[in-house]
Amino acid sequence: MNKQLVFGHANPDTDAIGTAIAAAEYFKRRGIETEAVALGNPNDETRFALNYFHLKCPRVINKADTEEVILVDHNEAKQSVSNFNDIKVTHVIDHHKINFQTTDPIYYYAKPVGCTSTILFELYQNAHLEIPSPIAGIMLSAIISDTLLLKSPTTTDEDRQAVEALAKIAEVSDYKKYGLTMLKAGTNVDKHSDHEIIDGDAKSFEMNGRKVRIGQVNTVDVNDVLSRSSLKDNVKKEMIDKGYDDILLVVTNIIDSNSKGIFYGKDESAVEKAFNAKLIDHVIDLPGIVSRKKQIVPNLTKGME
Amino acid sequence: MNKQLVFGHANPDTDAIGTAIAAAEYFKRRGIETEAVALGNPNDETRFALNYFHLKCPRVINKADTEEVILVDHNEAKQSVSNFNDIKVTHVIDHHKINFQTTDPIYYYAKPVGCTSTILFELYQNAHLEIPSPIAGIMLSAIISDTLLLKSPTTTDEDRQAVEALAKIAEVSDYKKYGLTMLKAGTNVDKHSDHEIIDGDAKSFEMNGRKVRIGQVNTVDVNDVLSRSSLKDNVKKEMIDKGYDDILLVVTNIIDSNSKGIFYGKDESAVEKAFNAKLIDHVIDLPGIVSRKKQIVPNLTKGME
Repeated sequence: MNKQLVFGHANPDTDAIGTAIAAAEYFKRRGIETEAVALGNPNDETRFALNYFHLKCPRVINKADTEEVILVDHNEAKQSVSNFNDIKVTHVIDHHKINFQTTDPIYYYAKPVGCTSTILFELYQNAHLEIPSPIAGIMLSAIISDTLLLKSPTTTDEDRQAVEALAKIAEVSDYKKYGLTMLKAGTNVDKHSDHEIIDGDAKSFEMNGRKVRIGQVNTVDVNDVLSRSSLKDNVKKEMIDKGYDDILLVVTNIIDSNSKGIFYGKDESAVEKAFNAKLIDHVIDLPGIVSRKKQIVPNLTKGME
Repeated sequence: MNKQLVFGHANPDTDAIGTAIAAAEYFKRRGIETEAVALGNPNDETRFALNYFHLKCPRVINKADTEEVILVDHNEAKQSVSNFNDIKVTHVIDHHKINFQTTDPIYYYAKPVGCTSTILFELYQNAHLEIPSPIAGIMLSAIISDTLLLKSPTTTDEDRQAVEALAKIAEVSDYKKYGLTMLKAGTNVDKHSDHEIIDGDAKSFEMNGRKVRIGQVNTVDVNDVLSRSSLKDNVKKEMIDKGYDDILLVVTNIIDSNSKGIFYGKDESAVEKAFNAKLIDHVIDLPGIVSRKKQIVPNLTKGME
């Protein structure tokens, strides 16, 4: 059997990279030769977690160089490798909405949980496989990242149980303390360009025929980010340069779980309707909003109908 | 929590109905109020199996009357309830190719195994739930039906292991003997009309923009079916009346695992290319062909490209 690449979505976050590493190990133990790769460089938070658990950063690709691949943490072509239509997907493990077609039956396992690593944890359990300590550490980091330390509304009991168990295996005595340190490592925006802040975690969505770009950046001080002199101009520029119909950059305070959004687009009333608030000079207040998947995308999809 | 319907595809076979019963029981034990229903009357084989294990036939519907539903043994709208786009699918358990979209994350578990009941068997095992004896019996029947007694090329080791285990739970001492009796009960075509033979197990597929209808009927004597005086005319009539571009009725001998096909359509060379054989008076020889999913649909899809 030939080698199969295992990867998460483009603009990878800690779930995309961490779960690719965990899934590559899982399938290796099930007899498939695998290599975890990443569709982009790890961000500061992921880099912190990889270093902490002495894991190497996966090779970065944008085009798959094996015939068969395993997807984690995404299923849509537009979030994947550039040659998506020329390769065969044999397995998908994911926790996002589904937009997927195949010509043959394949393995597909999705659950509405906070993080793909929570699903991997279940797979390891069901197969009675021990999780190596560093792999448990990066899975723990992925869940903390996706659920903002189990505070996001996407969090389920399964995520909580996985965090407790993985922290033990990874020998992390205080996962809250570790998690906050890791999340903070990902919020140092001072050394990043506006473009890195805008595009670092951005994903494209189609809403009512419109091409909508949604980015999110975590911080411990929202105003610290919003006060960057050229940020708004550059959000607008990104939309124009890349041909998006709308663009929303969500700036999230990971300590108190509130956000503000910078929006440019064709229909400002759609975003005001979506979040039941007024845009003031292209900024909208988003109290209690932290989850792109569970709060931002569904609300905005409805607002754009 | 409101009740959720659990159902397999329209024109139900023993997998569609049997796995709906098994899944309804599984999710009930997991705290969801469920009712197994069927999108059509059970065929003779399914009726035999239900009677054998003293199970009631599920209520027959064509439109779902609950807001939320669980799909088994299918995922495509065109094989499902008439109000598919107005209801919310919360879970899918399936073994077919995927053509599925959601607006929210849901539970989706698919594996390339011979029968959906094999996946249910794994779910019961993973949840450490005992399978009631009659439920094990109908799951056993579903696997025997879909794999033609473990002889179809779709058969995997998981199907074989599930059959062994389920036969014990269902107290079926000789599953081969039971299986052959059950399969034969489904092959008594004498009392059925041509239309029942043509449409009883038929499914629609889109291939290269063409609407293709594929039916399959099991028998112990292929010529016995082909010699029906008006069968070919009625296959052609079905295509014209329902507006299909192409129609293929596969007649399969369950004892020796060979088939013949009756074909009408826009492009006879496509079906000849697909199966590397000549159509003679609209009949094509299909030696070794028994699986619609693994052999007929992929070959015909390629032939139509």
